[in-house]
Amino acid sequence: MQQEPAQHQKLKELIPMHSSIIAGAGLIGLEMVEAFKKRGQTGRGDMDVTVVEMADHILPSLLDKNMAKIVERELEANGVKIILGERVEEILGRDGQIKGIITSAKRNIDSDFIVLGTGVRPNSEIARDAGVELGYANAIKVDEYMRTNIPDIFAAGDCATARNYITNKDTYIPLGTTANKQGRVAGENVVGGNTKFRGIAGSAITKVFDLFIGKTGLTSEEGIRNGFDPVEELIESITRAGYYPGNKPIWIKIVADRKSGRVLGSQIVGGEGVKERIDLIALALLLKADIRDLASFDACYVPPASPVWEPINIAASQTAKLVI
Amino acid sequence: MQQEPAQHQKLKELIPMHSSIIAGAGLIGLEMVEAFKKRGQTGRGDMDVTVVEMADHILPSLLDKNMAKIVERELEANGVKIILGERVEEILGRDGQIKGIITSAKRNIDSDFIVLGTGVRPNSEIARDAGVELGYANAIKVDEYMRTNIPDIFAAGDCATARNYITNKDTYIPLGTTANKQGRVAGENVVGGNTKFRGIAGSAITKVFDLFIGKTGLTSEEGIRNGFDPVEELIESITRAGYYPGNKPIWIKIVADRKSGRVLGSQIVGGEGVKERIDLIALALLLKADIRDLASFDACYVPPASPVWEPINIAASQTAKLVI
Repeated sequence: MQQEPAQHQKLKELIPMHSSIIAGAGLIGLEMVEAFKKRGQTGRGDMDVTVVEMADHILPSLLDKNMAKIVERELEANGVKIILGERVEEILGRDGQIKGIITSAKRNIDSDFIVLGTGVRPNSEIARDAGVELGYANAIKVDEYMRTNIPDIFAAGDCATARNYITNKDTYIPLGTTANKQGRVAGENVVGGNTKFRGIAGSAITKVFDLFIGKTGLTSEEGIRNGFDPVEELIESITRAGYYPGNKPIWIKIVADRKSGRVLGSQIVGGEGVKERIDLIALALLLKADIRDLASFDACYVPPASPVWEPINIAASQTAKLVI
Repeated sequence: MQQEPAQHQKLKELIPMHSSIIAGAGLIGLEMVEAFKKRGQTGRGDMDVTVVEMADHILPSLLDKNMAKIVERELEANGVKIILGERVEEILGRDGQIKGIITSAKRNIDSDFIVLGTGVRPNSEIARDAGVELGYANAIKVDEYMRTNIPDIFAAGDCATARNYITNKDTYIPLGTTANKQGRVAGENVVGGNTKFRGIAGSAITKVFDLFIGKTGLTSEEGIRNGFDPVEELIESITRAGYYPGNKPIWIKIVADRKSGRVLGSQIVGGEGVKERIDLIALALLLKADIRDLASFDACYVPPASPVWEPINIAASQTAKLVI
């Protein structure tokens, strides 16, 4: 979504003051956390920022708890307060001004600014009312050609379902990358083409302060729900040779199926090189790679961009030990 | 190879003066070019550095001519002189001091320091004399278990051959990554293990001034020599969203087989994110991926690490148009 400069400016001017609450520690919520914290530092002194998340860890759609811990430490090091396992239950106001919230645990927090980053739902009512079939999460149900149930009506992007290429089930993960690819397929087919959308792996990434945080494929829990027998290992490595300036930590978890060895997904948190490594795993998922392929492909080495053993090779070797 | 600090120091002290010549614009040659140029700048004023390469472009083992041009511009922008298509034929001296060179085109260049970076040969004589069979490029011939022709004698690393997993032929590309992986396999098998080395894709990377330069798999020319019918396309993209600070250019070429669509190799030059993208292609090569897989896998997007369309997706889409 593109913000008009005027609205953008208006939001900036609205930004407080001395305290804000972000409800929901998802992708949008955490981007707001950083923006507010930095705006405070550069603009009008330090600002209290509290994020309230109903799950027991932040970024629940991207990370397992042990990966989320790494990001929670980064947030706390930057002065962000995190409240987990509680929901915003009531917003308090006085004289038309926001004054604070009450959480599901009856915690009362004063604040003059609240952002709700609690999720996205497809805006599909108009389609439904026109007789277009809805599917997963009430998104418009499309096939791999982006066709709906009604001839000559196509759908793509944040209103439509997408097929997960690991589980082969419909899902709803509204992201610009998917919208872009689906839109191209729909466009080609609308004018008589015969192009297929290959589906998604649920690849997503964000950056919070100095950490990139990415996910693709399934977590172990999602693997179990889809009939796999997942194993996983979490490793910590570095993004450059030990002696090279600017070296940053990187944490990688790769999930694989115990019986078949098939790669199921990955979560990566680190200072750099996260996006491209998530992409590598996303490709591995499309190609139904074995965890031993990831352990032994011919990765290259240059001191300013990796240690001698590519961290993906290391992480996959560790997970591979758990595969029978 | 690890330099002893004492030797390292000695080399630093030897570094001139006012001019140096690097014979051979390969990986080692170009690393020396940068080191000398920077040493000159930070140490004792500017230094003339001239690189003499017998091929018609630099980094001939890594890059095609059109990719090499990008790196040649970077070298020239940093004040490096490049002489192509000529060999160092004679080294001139006087009173035990180096005075310059004469090239195969009878060009006479004054210089007080010359580095020969003209290639690597396996140090395999002792093995040959002991009856161990040599193979490609006189490296010790090993199978996938790192066994030689003599029972109980194993070889690994810069003295040994490695199987290319695209062509399935033996090759010799002595790099630390391969030595590391082969050494581990040999070690396990020496003590009774049954581990296979999966082979190499010829993945290699270097950094020269502000550019990373990587290659994996085959160039089109190498593809033809191995019975493929290669097509390729070179694209220029960026490493971050257009508006994001620190955005850098990246050039990607992907080679595929016209008939089968199989990915054959890639060359990438750019300011960041080159190593991980070469790794992604190296994995694609191991998995015998189709160029259309690379065009459509679910890459993730975050403004500080890519444009919305991952550059690999873009490059592969362009090459895919040439596949029948």
